[in-house]
Amino acid sequence: MVMYERFRVSLIPALLALVGCALPGGPAAEDGPILIDGGTVVAMDQAGTVLEGGAVLVEGDRIAAVLAPGEPRPEGTRLIDATGHLVIPGLVNTHGHAAMSLLRGLADDLPLMTWLNDYIFPAEAALVAPDFVYWGTLLSSVEMLKGGTTTFADMYYFRDDMARATIDAGIRSVTGPHVIGFPTPDFASPEESLANAAEFMERYRGHPTVVPAVAAHALYTTPLDAVEAAFRLAEQYDAPFQIHTVEDPSEDVTAREQTGMGVVEALESIGALRPGTVLAHSIYMSDEDLARVAAGGAGIAHNPQSNMKLGVPRAAPVAAALAAGIPVGIGTDGPASNNDLDMFDEMDAAAKVQKFMLGDPAALPAETVFRMATMGGARVLNLHDEIGSLEAGKRADIVLLDTRRPGLTPLYRVYSHLVYAARGSDVTTVLVNGRIVVRDREILTVDEDEVMERARGFGDRVREVMAGVGEEGDAR
Amino acid sequence: MVMYERFRVSLIPALLALVGCALPGGPAAEDGPILIDGGTVVAMDQAGTVLEGGAVLVEGDRIAAVLAPGEPRPEGTRLIDATGHLVIPGLVNTHGHAAMSLLRGLADDLPLMTWLNDYIFPAEAALVAPDFVYWGTLLSSVEMLKGGTTTFADMYYFRDDMARATIDAGIRSVTGPHVIGFPTPDFASPEESLANAAEFMERYRGHPTVVPAVAAHALYTTPLDAVEAAFRLAEQYDAPFQIHTVEDPSEDVTAREQTGMGVVEALESIGALRPGTVLAHSIYMSDEDLARVAAGGAGIAHNPQSNMKLGVPRAAPVAAALAAGIPVGIGTDGPASNNDLDMFDEMDAAAKVQKFMLGDPAALPAETVFRMATMGGARVLNLHDEIGSLEAGKRADIVLLDTRRPGLTPLYRVYSHLVYAARGSDVTTVLVNGRIVVRDREILTVDEDEVMERARGFGDRVREVMAGVGEEGDAR
Repeated sequence: MVMYERFRVSLIPALLALVGCALPGGPAAEDGPILIDGGTVVAMDQAGTVLEGGAVLVEGDRIAAVLAPGEPRPEGTRLIDATGHLVIPGLVNTHGHAAMSLLRGLADDLPLMTWLNDYIFPAEAALVAPDFVYWGTLLSSVEMLKGGTTTFADMYYFRDDMARATIDAGIRSVTGPHVIGFPTPDFASPEESLANAAEFMERYRGHPTVVPAVAAHALYTTPLDAVEAAFRLAEQYDAPFQIHTVEDPSEDVTAREQTGMGVVEALESIGALRPGTVLAHSIYMSDEDLARVAAGGAGIAHNPQSNMKLGVPRAAPVAAALAAGIPVGIGTDGPASNNDLDMFDEMDAAAKVQKFMLGDPAALPAETVFRMATMGGARVLNLHDEIGSLEAGKRADIVLLDTRRPGLTPLYRVYSHLVYAARGSDVTTVLVNGRIVVRDREILTVDEDEVMERARGFGDRVREVMAGVGEEGDAR
Repeated sequence: MVMYERFRVSLIPALLALVGCALPGGPAAEDGPILIDGGTVVAMDQAGTVLEGGAVLVEGDRIAAVLAPGEPRPEGTRLIDATGHLVIPGLVNTHGHAAMSLLRGLADDLPLMTWLNDYIFPAEAALVAPDFVYWGTLLSSVEMLKGGTTTFADMYYFRDDMARATIDAGIRSVTGPHVIGFPTPDFASPEESLANAAEFMERYRGHPTVVPAVAAHALYTTPLDAVEAAFRLAEQYDAPFQIHTVEDPSEDVTAREQTGMGVVEALESIGALRPGTVLAHSIYMSDEDLARVAAGGAGIAHNPQSNMKLGVPRAAPVAAALAAGIPVGIGTDGPASNNDLDMFDEMDAAAKVQKFMLGDPAALPAETVFRMATMGGARVLNLHDEIGSLEAGKRADIVLLDTRRPGLTPLYRVYSHLVYAARGSDVTTVLVNGRIVVRDREILTVDEDEVMERARGFGDRVREVMAGVGEEGDAR
């Protein structure tokens, strides 16, 4: 049995990057299988298996077996002692804009257009470039991994730098080309963005941790033909397709003016409501919209905290969507409008806001919400054969959460604690694709201090930009 | 300069209890003054002072001075290095039932009456006794202290054991006699509860950390004359008075049937809407009710997460109450209906649910919410001359929060991070009444492992009771 000191010794980012390059996303083959034993395994399989004193065996990038308490353990494994821990599938964050962590807390509590026009857009116009996207995405990837998120779907600019950051962090990402109907920091038009987008899709096809995906910003910002062109690219590669959908009632009005159809109907008209299409937000969905989505097989990324913070006066109809058989996952949205990337917080909010909106404490029970954050999210991203549960054959995306603190003691029901009482800081160990990326609450893949130092540097530049547009940007 | 190793050496609970007995709530006099230097001081004084590189000087149980970056520092102090930290007033939790941590997660997602009648009441009937209250309150006190809460107001049974637990933990508490119109584990009637209640009030009058207070459960459970008798006792001792108020619309109906007045009007009729009266929940307050409360000077304890989780379809009218000049604080409610005691979570939810309900992102900005959790709560409890801000002369209830993690980097505005991005686990050091009770994220006053071990023992007994009433109480 080999213990973990070796990981500490090898904590030189450049070296790890090299290893990650030679064996992308996986541990060195000679490290051999990993046995996570002695905790409570919360499998999130169809049967809802929970095994107190169970074990998970990892071989290479896959789960080889989930073992019941009495079953014999294989020899010659590296042991991860899960005593006092819950062993859960890595959480799946179905919607966000990770690089915006560099703008988190720059401004809040403002009407949407003031927030965007006076703060976010000027800062983005001045600063969004490959290095901003790389370091911002890295910062967020570290926050997410340390909080138990092993997969996230992202929409932002400079796709290559975004993908590179997620590879360096060791997190699984769903990301790629993005179109919007006006010039962005990376491209002058949707056409230009799509011109060499196939290259990205080809490069990452079959990549162990980057799932290439295509995004169109929204129908209110992007002409339907550009949305369709983006969707066709996704279709061609059987890739996820992401789009913001009815976050505001005005979106349907705009879509009707421009296409004669509401947003969801317009997406249906181009065939885009297929499995793997991620409809972010989906707040103002009518019953007819839900029926269309259910018929097509698309999924919903529910972002309760961002929506609430921006003053949207209703929540996505999650209980109704689930009842209609629609895959529903949970997302944090960008860290500038949330303002954290803690999926435990987000689960808690998802459960509570639905109960609040429906006046029903039984709406979205804890187990349903935890399923949304794991298998539900995996289904939304059309990755449910690969991730989302602890089952033999799936990718080894595994999180250990320490329950030995006063706020989680005693423990009666695992789902209750996971949704209502746990938080990202309870996570101690994280595996992505069979590789240990967080151990004893420390990130092993990158130099966290360097990431934060770079982030502070961008913070200084943001403050300068804001001073230039008449904002103080002080530490208040 | 004396460093902190001495606190580690003295980590024998019995010994500390002894010291706490000799010098209740304060450090040994020979320890001398403490200087908290090098962080960003968020004072929450009237001017909203924020001092990057400021310092707080503590002498005995009080704050002696708040020093600006350039001001000379006194000699001969024990230094607490606050580099990278925010230095904030201890958070004030204005409403809860701490001992119910032993029932956290026993059952959730149920209609209120099913939850109470099938789970909470049977468990309480079988188990609530002095030891249950002592250990449950201690468990919650540790959770709260480690999460930055230095004062909490509580309503539960066995007041002496409750008070003893908070003294042993080293947290400031607002607690005492409690009346309700039916037999409880400690008393057969409100009259019996009040019979020797003055004893409790006398014993803790002037206590350094226990603020004796009187509670009446609610008008829908307790006759108005018993509520009035309890209030008179509070009045006699100039003590806080706590009561659940219009958490449900039926409460006004019941009150009208029994008294000819709505709940708030009935409280006004006995003079109970005075400063120091804590109206917990206050969800279904009409404009007339708010005007009555504003005129009387009572305060509101807002419990957003508990209310949402129990499916209450609206939030307390906090923005309107603040506009009317009513003191508003934040509370977690009991850990069985929340399910955590993290005031950072609660601030986040308070801001977001108000924006959601009002459809206004500008409702309850971060600074307003942080004020609610500090000075606002202090005003609600009528303790604003003693706690709630970092100002010379106030009790030294001080919290250090480490901002050096990816989720809090970069830092643009302290209130934004405090409300929307920080969490209890970011707290590293806590002083209550000048005494260091949490250091490097470790509780110094009690043996945390022992507290959790006892809590698990109660968990086993709860499971047995539940098995007896036909519930499995398994680990699912």
